[in-house]
Amino acid sequence: MSVDLAFDENKLLPAIAQDVETGGVLMLAYVTREAIERSRETGEAHYYSRSRDELWHKGGSSGHVQRIEEIRVDCDGDAILYLVDQEGGACHTGYESCFYRTLDGEVVGDRVFDPDDVYE
Amino acid sequence: MSVDLAFDENKLLPAIAQDVETGGVLMLAYVTREAIERSRETGEAHYYSRSRDELWHKGGSSGHVQRIEEIRVDCDGDAILYLVDQEGGACHTGYESCFYRTLDGEVVGDRVFDPDDVYE
Repeated sequence: MSVDLAFDENKLLPAIAQDVETGGVLMLAYVTREAIERSRETGEAHYYSRSRDELWHKGGSSGHVQRIEEIRVDCDGDAILYLVDQEGGACHTGYESCFYRTLDGEVVGDRVFDPDDVYE
Repeated sequence: MSVDLAFDENKLLPAIAQDVETGGVLMLAYVTREAIERSRETGEAHYYSRSRDELWHKGGSSGHVQRIEEIRVDCDGDAILYLVDQEGGACHTGYESCFYRTLDGEVVGDRVFDPDDVYE
């Protein structure tokens, strides 16, 4: 990587995933350097799961992978943007995007799968 | 706000700003509850500047304000999305988006203003 990245004190950076076709912002998660490298090597988005404390291949169990089209970095090097082709939906709730609600709780996103069919 | 927000130990949440017209992801910054409330009250995006340790009205000095069209929250309530109408450019470097480079350093964004004309 030729752009310097400014990882935080936990060696993490926030990563935004955006659908290249629709332009929709799908999710925000965190990445380590290893997660970024794995994303580049495999062509599928990897993150770091803070709750499970491990490298996380998005869609590895559900099949809802994110094929990486491009990875961008912001001006300060402290956030990255995955431009992806999303298989299925990004959100574990079944919505295409994790940002499916307004702050007032109104549902504005589309549900694209039934989580009961995907997760055991 | 009817959706519960999960602020971190520093009472912050990451906030993504997206241009409602172009769909471009403009920047990632952080917000406090006060910043979100000010954004709703004024209709212009507010953040919390971690470097200056204060409430930050984006564009307050440069004029490059972000008019809020909608605020969304993610499934876990630990990230928000400002859908905005961006005046000028979002990035202090003069680019429309802070995500104007790939990880390899290739410039892929558009420069929309000269920072020398805007910042003293």
